[in-house]
Amino acid sequence: MSNLCSRRRTAKVVGLAALTLAFLAFLPGLASAADSDVGLETQFIFNTFAFLVWGALIMWMAAGFTMLESGAVRTKNASMICLKNIGIYSIAGLAYFVVGYNLMYVDVGDYIGTLEIFYSTSGDEISLLDGEEAALAAVIDNGYAVMSDWFFQMVFVATAASIVSGAIAERIKMWPFFLFTLVLTAFIYPVVGAWSWGGGWLAQEGFVDFAGATIVHGTGGWAALAGVLVVGPRLGKFREDGSVKPTPPSNVLIFTLGVFILWLGWFAFNGGSQLALGSAADAVSMSNILVNTNLSASAGVLAALAVSRPLLGRMDLFAGMNGAIAGLVAITAGPAITEHWWAVIIGAVGGLVCTLATKLLERLKIDDVVGAIPAHLASGIWGTLAATIAAGGRFHVQLFGVAAVGVFVFILSYVVWRVMDALLGIRVSAQVERLGQDAGELGIESYPEFVLMPEED
Amino acid sequence: MSNLCSRRRTAKVVGLAALTLAFLAFLPGLASAADSDVGLETQFIFNTFAFLVWGALIMWMAAGFTMLESGAVRTKNASMICLKNIGIYSIAGLAYFVVGYNLMYVDVGDYIGTLEIFYSTSGDEISLLDGEEAALAAVIDNGYAVMSDWFFQMVFVATAASIVSGAIAERIKMWPFFLFTLVLTAFIYPVVGAWSWGGGWLAQEGFVDFAGATIVHGTGGWAALAGVLVVGPRLGKFREDGSVKPTPPSNVLIFTLGVFILWLGWFAFNGGSQLALGSAADAVSMSNILVNTNLSASAGVLAALAVSRPLLGRMDLFAGMNGAIAGLVAITAGPAITEHWWAVIIGAVGGLVCTLATKLLERLKIDDVVGAIPAHLASGIWGTLAATIAAGGRFHVQLFGVAAVGVFVFILSYVVWRVMDALLGIRVSAQVERLGQDAGELGIESYPEFVLMPEED
Amino acid sequence: MSNLCSRRRTAKVVGLAALTLAFLAFLPGLASAADSDVGLETQFIFNTFAFLVWGALIMWMAAGFTMLESGAVRTKNASMICLKNIGIYSIAGLAYFVVGYNLMYVDVGDYIGTLEIFYSTSGDEISLLDGEEAALAAVIDNGYAVMSDWFFQMVFVATAASIVSGAIAERIKMWPFFLFTLVLTAFIYPVVGAWSWGGGWLAQEGFVDFAGATIVHGTGGWAALAGVLVVGPRLGKFREDGSVKPTPPSNVLIFTLGVFILWLGWFAFNGGSQLALGSAADAVSMSNILVNTNLSASAGVLAALAVSRPLLGRMDLFAGMNGAIAGLVAITAGPAITEHWWAVIIGAVGGLVCTLATKLLERLKIDDVVGAIPAHLASGIWGTLAATIAAGGRFHVQLFGVAAVGVFVFILSYVVWRVMDALLGIRVSAQVERLGQDAGELGIESYPEFVLMPEED
Repeated sequence: MSNLCSRRRTAKVVGLAALTLAFLAFLPGLASAADSDVGLETQFIFNTFAFLVWGALIMWMAAGFTMLESGAVRTKNASMICLKNIGIYSIAGLAYFVVGYNLMYVDVGDYIGTLEIFYSTSGDEISLLDGEEAALAAVIDNGYAVMSDWFFQMVFVATAASIVSGAIAERIKMWPFFLFTLVLTAFIYPVVGAWSWGGGWLAQEGFVDFAGATIVHGTGGWAALAGVLVVGPRLGKFREDGSVKPTPPSNVLIFTLGVFILWLGWFAFNGGSQLALGSAADAVSMSNILVNTNLSASAGVLAALAVSRPLLGRMDLFAGMNGAIAGLVAITAGPAITEHWWAVIIGAVGGLVCTLATKLLERLKIDDVVGAIPAHLASGIWGTLAATIAAGGRFHVQLFGVAAVGVFVFILSYVVWRVMDALLGIRVSAQVERLGQDAGELGIESYPEFVLMPEED
Repeated sequence: MSNLCSRRRTAKVVGLAALTLAFLAFLPGLASAADSDVGLETQFIFNTFAFLVWGALIMWMAAGFTMLESGAVRTKNASMICLKNIGIYSIAGLAYFVVGYNLMYVDVGDYIGTLEIFYSTSGDEISLLDGEEAALAAVIDNGYAVMSDWFFQMVFVATAASIVSGAIAERIKMWPFFLFTLVLTAFIYPVVGAWSWGGGWLAQEGFVDFAGATIVHGTGGWAALAGVLVVGPRLGKFREDGSVKPTPPSNVLIFTLGVFILWLGWFAFNGGSQLALGSAADAVSMSNILVNTNLSASAGVLAALAVSRPLLGRMDLFAGMNGAIAGLVAITAGPAITEHWWAVIIGAVGGLVCTLATKLLERLKIDDVVGAIPAHLASGIWGTLAATIAAGGRFHVQLFGVAAVGVFVFILSYVVWRVMDALLGIRVSAQVERLGQDAGELGIESYPEFVLMPEED
Repeated sequence: MSNLCSRRRTAKVVGLAALTLAFLAFLPGLASAADSDVGLETQFIFNTFAFLVWGALIMWMAAGFTMLESGAVRTKNASMICLKNIGIYSIAGLAYFVVGYNLMYVDVGDYIGTLEIFYSTSGDEISLLDGEEAALAAVIDNGYAVMSDWFFQMVFVATAASIVSGAIAERIKMWPFFLFTLVLTAFIYPVVGAWSWGGGWLAQEGFVDFAGATIVHGTGGWAALAGVLVVGPRLGKFREDGSVKPTPPSNVLIFTLGVFILWLGWFAFNGGSQLALGSAADAVSMSNILVNTNLSASAGVLAALAVSRPLLGRMDLFAGMNGAIAGLVAITAGPAITEHWWAVIIGAVGGLVCTLATKLLERLKIDDVVGAIPAHLASGIWGTLAATIAAGGRFHVQLFGVAAVGVFVFILSYVVWRVMDALLGIRVSAQVERLGQDAGELGIESYPEFVLMPEED
């Protein structure tokens, strides 16, 4: 147990070591234990509790995506977003339990882990719980409770899946969407994860992605892009005269709430990715991570707001809010840097990249309802590269890793979407789309008692 | 101090021991201290901090209930729900401080604790805070800060009370409702708690309920059922032609937000109920609890969605969301099981039970506005029984405990509602009910600037 | 590093010591280390993790203010509130990084810290992260990770700034508001902080303010009052016939959500202000703080509701919700008291003071949109005085501190608002005000698809 579970950590540390020579300082129970007064069982508790507390707050990001997306779509599709998002989180959690985690972390060779089903508490842990104190040493040797890591990793896969739903909202059918979510969380994401955090070939190449700017947000973004291309833009989004129909958030307060939830959750997402809290070095690094995460997000907001005026013609609330997400994604690849002004730069550029990408997608007539591709994919690419710019390191490996993940996820997702489209049809009928998925597909409206305006074309 | 405060823990451990033989591993500062490197003061800090962090997140469930309920009721009654829920939480917190905790945990005989008022920091703790280091040993010996446990227990009583408000919404008067909340939080719940977690007769019988599927959710559910029966269904809910007026959530986004808040809070509700974090065994168990909680909720969502189609004629968002709550309630009685696939089964059956019970209540013309009785009471009964099915144990004791709590809470609640009805009248006038409690009773509307549709009958 | 960072703590402890003689018990790594089994590195991790977890939850208060305010204002101005609040949080975070923290805590003489820019991880910490184990002792000696404290202090400045936006909402221009936010977070608040928590002259006088009833909430409140006076009331708020136009929350559910978020965040705000978790005494005190915070808020709700009937003519939801905030603010100056019934009294009086102040402001024709001045300033003054009433201490020093902060913040804020008004104009045109800032200034509406009622005058 101890070996396989520490792989993710090992993989990351190897990567970081190349950059920061901090190899030893980061290995829990090795360097620090030597002259540390933190006993091994105390370390075990710290590591485990950090996984649990941060993991719980990352689960909260599922609510953030739900609010962001349901506030962003037309009113007529908001309930469907709510259902899809609780569905995503449920499917992801079960798929990762049944096969995902094993594929990603257990006995990973170069490309993939084991195909065994279910992941479970270790035998040593069960013995300890049964009162066999002799098992304590073996339990502690793992560094953290086996299932606390599973819990922490599970909320990551849910995040990756959440990214997709917003981009392809308002026209994708519910069942094909859930089916894609299953494929993404049971196979696509775990394979990408096996390559990198699982210790596979990409990790061996030296690819570095601390909390998943590419592994999580890139994967979600590429899958979303494939889906958007296959399903096509919403009816009337790109008008025949070349203009773009504006579709601002239908509920700005709920949309904003979603952004704040994600911001909060990101402290956990990045901070928890230190994967340990058993030494002063871990605590210092975790602190730096939270600070950088906040600086980057703040800079993302202000940069996106600033450039929204020349680019979009006004101080744009939507751009500013998405700038927060972009700043958060951008710092995710390397949030442990100690030169904190770099976090400001990374976030500001992230906000800029996101706003530019939003504009670009519109030009290309690619209809991403909530701006998920600009915020998660575009800013995630920038962040993955920036991690080496800021901290020194192998830029070309990062570029290569970004491309490899992109090619794999995009192609596979594209094929899945296409096959589903051929077999099931992934797009709702024009009638349902006009009426809205809430009334047309789900039979429940988001605000059944409010009087709504007829939609303009 | 040390004795009385550890009772809840002791009571639970006794129960668990019968099932898992894990008696020693769970006692903090006993088994683990022997060959543990976690010092007693370090254990004290871990235990206390876990109470505080998880307790704070459980308080957040009050917001979850408020959002779930105010999003579920008709728009015309949503503000009243907001006021009632902040009132519940405030009343519960004060009542539990003045008498509730003492009744439940202090000097409990078979049926009830002490009638003393106020609960407080221990004398040893005050000495320590005053700088008397000699008091340290006595403070630490308690295992955790006295008031951290009070805080943790207090948010539980607030949860029990929150369950009631949703079921009887839209027609119960504010003042009688607040009065009932006072009785429930100052007396009914503490007595049930004294029997079980307080170490009273039900605990001595071997009744097991880890985090309160029956003690918290059953108590709330029975009290709600009594209230619903006394106050009667909403006007027009059950039509003369035998059909049922559909009353879907008036704000699906807010309703959904409430469900996510509760899901997050439940990690704390169940995980914190480990009641200790001072050993590796505690950390392992807490990890398993969070994992099982999540698996059960996920399974509850998907099972409820799946059966909603044959049972209700469509993939029903409301059923799916309530399935999450049902899955969470169902696992609450025994979330520490190490065979995690059992959590999937328990949650799935919980979602099924909840959906069936929703249907059943409609048949019986019992009007539970938010489905609190199916989700908390029906699923809670299932979960309390399932805990022994999954982990082995005394099924008949569980059944007996469920019945005992049910008889006590239901009869007492029914009498209180009836007496209040006779003396004060608990139901608003038909005129206020038609107009809505917001305008008719509270004088404030939830969305005063939105144009609403006239209500259909 | 160790010296400067411990100043805030030292300053507070000096104050507390005068009151409680608890000097030694509160100094981490001093008293407790003596006969403690909590090693210094373990203490370091506890202290740091507490800063991070509580800090993250305090950040969540930014969402609370956003929801409270955007739910409270007219619908036509709610998006602007969302943008302003994410802007506040972003500006505050960057300003505090660039200059604020240094002004407040680094090399503080009597009045002010250093003018150096940027705050950063210490050299010792960087060495440790680079694998130099020799740096461990120096790192640990600081008591907590340098940037964890920065993170914790940063969320406080954001809170102070958030208080302003609600009071002056619906008529203040966006750009001048952001400019004021910059001045407040980069200079005004840090100077007040330097005087007190930074160890400056006010701390030396013995002024006590545990978590910032005056330092945070007073500062925000005085700045808001100055802004409200300069910008003037909303058009039509005070009618010529002497009556006051009622402006209830436009979205009660979102408003209520904001209150619950703030309540949750306040556990972190006050509890984290213990500033340490490395000893049993710290854990005990933190527990008492959370309990008192909850008792005070609960009492604030019920007291405000109770007095709202005679004062405002009905059980007023708005008064009750603001009573929660008032109760939370009131206990903030001295939440560590061990006689918990005092917390009930402090909160109840806070709720009363807030409701009275709301009435008074209306009489004075001062238009505070969300009641920020009653809840934060009026209740904060009461709480700052009450801290010595409850725990014994120097009442006149408290009074003097309240006045000093008031004079400084109010005058400086007033000048800044006046100068900006002369140079830029701080108030939107009457046309924009009537149309709403969302459509008129921001070009985005909060609920673009909902049909709204025409506003009454």
